[in-house]
Amino acid sequence: MINIGIVGYGNLGRGVEANLKNAPDMNLVGIFSRRNPDTLDTEAKAYHIDDILNFKDKIDVLILCGGSRSDIPEQGPALAEHFNTVDSYDNHSQIPNYFESIDTVAKAHKYVSIIATGWDPGLFSLNRLIGEAILPKGDTYTFWGEGLSQGHGDAVRRVEGVKDGVQYTIPNTELIDQIHAGETVEYTSKSAHNRDVYVVLEEGADAEKVKNDIVTMPDYFEGYQTEVTFITEEELHANHAGLPHGGRVIRSGETSPDMQQVYEYGLNLGSNPEFTAAVNVAYARAAYKLHQEGLSGAQTVFDIAPKYLSPKSAADLRKELL
Amino acid sequence: MINIGIVGYGNLGRGVEANLKNAPDMNLVGIFSRRNPDTLDTEAKAYHIDDILNFKDKIDVLILCGGSRSDIPEQGPALAEHFNTVDSYDNHSQIPNYFESIDTVAKAHKYVSIIATGWDPGLFSLNRLIGEAILPKGDTYTFWGEGLSQGHGDAVRRVEGVKDGVQYTIPNTELIDQIHAGETVEYTSKSAHNRDVYVVLEEGADAEKVKNDIVTMPDYFEGYQTEVTFITEEELHANHAGLPHGGRVIRSGETSPDMQQVYEYGLNLGSNPEFTAAVNVAYARAAYKLHQEGLSGAQTVFDIAPKYLSPKSAADLRKELL
Repeated sequence: MINIGIVGYGNLGRGVEANLKNAPDMNLVGIFSRRNPDTLDTEAKAYHIDDILNFKDKIDVLILCGGSRSDIPEQGPALAEHFNTVDSYDNHSQIPNYFESIDTVAKAHKYVSIIATGWDPGLFSLNRLIGEAILPKGDTYTFWGEGLSQGHGDAVRRVEGVKDGVQYTIPNTELIDQIHAGETVEYTSKSAHNRDVYVVLEEGADAEKVKNDIVTMPDYFEGYQTEVTFITEEELHANHAGLPHGGRVIRSGETSPDMQQVYEYGLNLGSNPEFTAAVNVAYARAAYKLHQEGLSGAQTVFDIAPKYLSPKSAADLRKELL
Repeated sequence: MINIGIVGYGNLGRGVEANLKNAPDMNLVGIFSRRNPDTLDTEAKAYHIDDILNFKDKIDVLILCGGSRSDIPEQGPALAEHFNTVDSYDNHSQIPNYFESIDTVAKAHKYVSIIATGWDPGLFSLNRLIGEAILPKGDTYTFWGEGLSQGHGDAVRRVEGVKDGVQYTIPNTELIDQIHAGETVEYTSKSAHNRDVYVVLEEGADAEKVKNDIVTMPDYFEGYQTEVTFITEEELHANHAGLPHGGRVIRSGETSPDMQQVYEYGLNLGSNPEFTAAVNVAYARAAYKLHQEGLSGAQTVFDIAPKYLSPKSAADLRKELL
């Protein structure tokens, strides 16, 4: 059995807990939180994060479920001194720095840290790499959605006059159809996605002003085709409580002049955090096996042979799945 | 530069030759054939297969492009004594035996042999593994087509009264829609695929008898929904000369009770042999790099970390694609 610890108990931590029930080769040792462990709504054992070093010899892999903004950049290197770790750090532009910082510690203390697992970064990255390596003469397109974007929802909720709200990222299916048809398209993040916003107004708020403040918001909405719909708080809770997401990576390329080949990877996720957690759990298995083999240091999805994700033997994999 | 040799010059060998033009880090040393090398229609250097050992120190990786029925099972182990090899051996049930036979030789002579690359086996296998590892509670569905099936075309052409013909495998899109909708489906190879046959009759042949002989053919067509269309030789050459194929692997699973997640990998290929060759070429790069690192023995797509497929450095991959 691979003994797992969960650090952080938000949506992602709960997702890891749920997914571990589907992993017959894994055992959840405990959940570690900054909150009072007695207040966590879980049947698993819960501990305060300050007690985690007591579990140094009882846990094979820690799955870090905190936020990428401030939790993971601190916790990752600190915990890599004592544990194998897996995280879903998702600040794309900072990945090289984060890799270096955790690699140094993990190598020095002979642990494995697999960073930036999940689906993007993670499985989408994997398919960007494989698509480009196999079809070097071509273009890669990443589409996100339909799905709930946490960052854009946060931005909407900060607008004056907004009581609550959510944002869905909607891929431009016309553009996808053109790519499928082998046409050359002008892909930009803005041309490839629309944004649907559902807003509950504060009492007395000016709907037109709220709408205008949203659609003109730089970085988040400006330049996108954005639709704002006003709904009641009841509608929000009834119809927008889930965390669906998904998207696709398409590599369209030529193997010889005018010979078109299309490579596509897609996800349609009922729950974004639960699926991210499912990926974390598979890579935790890889971290354990690689550490057993004597490897140490930071790793990404690019560095891990697929066999390490499965509980099956290499011979069984060849027989059953090749 | 990675120096490549091509063994066998049919559709696949020509596909490898075409794809090498897209690989700036690779150099085609020569094509090796059982035929008189002067008769090969290529601008590359061509040699008789009997001269291949003269190239032992000039070639880093051989890509084996012969047939899986008799060429590869003989050539693979024989050539693994002197070269790193990559092949697209595709006799699924015999893969474990083939793996063992080439592994022994490659290990003894310190070469790397990557077997069964391509798309199925190959990239589809990879996605069956990853899908199952991430969503252990679920089902995997493989659909082939729309595309030309070589084996079924051969079977049609052996029927009495058939002058020429082709067969397209057509996936059952209704079943795919049901899987996308999260429904439980009864998947069998027969329920998942239909077969479209285009036949040119011999002069004086009995069309009804030919049709009946085809649709009732055991193993190939019996039990499938098969449509037979009679066409002229001109139509066959004008409309059915390409080698398109493709398909998809879908993993549909739950991460927690009733929380549906759908993972999908699809290919839409203008040319089946050229795409298979593109995969061979990327894995030839991996064979070279792994051999440089001191690895030896047989490997499959399950054993190869994705970074080895790309000409880019690990740091660049993290920066650009993660």
